[in-house]
Amino acid sequence: MYFETIQQFQKVLGNLEAILVKAKHHADRRGFDANNFLGMRLTPDMFPLVRQIQIATDTAKATAAGLAGKEAPLYEDNETTLTQLIERVRSTRAFLQGFKANDFAGVEARKVKVPSTPGKAMRAPDYVMQRAVPNFYFHVTTAYALLRQGGVDLGKKDFLGDLPMIDL
Amino acid sequence: MYFETIQQFQKVLGNLEAILVKAKHHADRRGFDANNFLGMRLTPDMFPLVRQIQIATDTAKATAAGLAGKEAPLYEDNETTLTQLIERVRSTRAFLQGFKANDFAGVEARKVKVPSTPGKAMRAPDYVMQRAVPNFYFHVTTAYALLRQGGVDLGKKDFLGDLPMIDL
Repeated sequence: MYFETIQQFQKVLGNLEAILVKAKHHADRRGFDANNFLGMRLTPDMFPLVRQIQIATDTAKATAAGLAGKEAPLYEDNETTLTQLIERVRSTRAFLQGFKANDFAGVEARKVKVPSTPGKAMRAPDYVMQRAVPNFYFHVTTAYALLRQGGVDLGKKDFLGDLPMIDL
Repeated sequence: MYFETIQQFQKVLGNLEAILVKAKHHADRRGFDANNFLGMRLTPDMFPLVRQIQIATDTAKATAAGLAGKEAPLYEDNETTLTQLIERVRSTRAFLQGFKANDFAGVEARKVKVPSTPGKAMRAPDYVMQRAVPNFYFHVTTAYALLRQGGVDLGKKDFLGDLPMIDL
């Protein structure tokens, strides 16, 4: 389920990219500066859109790298335009695409470092289930809600993406 | 990972219960009707808090029941008070607590029905990874953000709960 989690992060980042593109088109159509979205917050003590996207992508790349024992690329966190944020999401997807199922062989026994608690770590299964996945969806959902509050025409399908259905 | 997902839903519903209790205390302290929160929306075309909590709990119980081939309890969706919503979260946790690891033996091969697409189903692994988990966190995050927008003193820790750390 480790590889599947990374594949799912990749899928959702694809959805997020499409959501950001929708926001860009919305702004262009209405004739306002699309970069105005970057500073929007759901409430004054929450991070603005730019930081939500930074954390969502950081969580995705840190999870893949941490589990597979690889290095994640460092981003400079200096995006000032929506186009740069779209590019960041795209780069993160490309990074995730480089992982294969066997990068995660034996990962159950691995410890994963948590930046906010130096000297401490989490067991890989706990890290994925209790930290990486909730945190990733937290920031993607918040970004989605921000943009929806900002007038972009979004629905649940934009968030979930296509679901592979089969006959009953 | 099926059983672990249900255990994680149970944990997060515990966090959600504590968040709703905080909202109740906040309202009591400020001297306004805590039930005012139920109708709050992040934006006019999103569901209000009451529906966010209903869908989060529905997703949790439908996932556990659908995967294990059991029946989920039906709720009447008629909550009008914050106390009733807290009770709904609590009942859902109790329902999830009844599942054991071996309820999910062989579930990989199971098909799970999706209410919104009659006659269709999803393979259990796709259902959990691509629909149940994202949908669950979507609604819990939205409820959290709504309450935070409503002035309740919340942080990421309320959302994630305690994380089991070990030494590096």
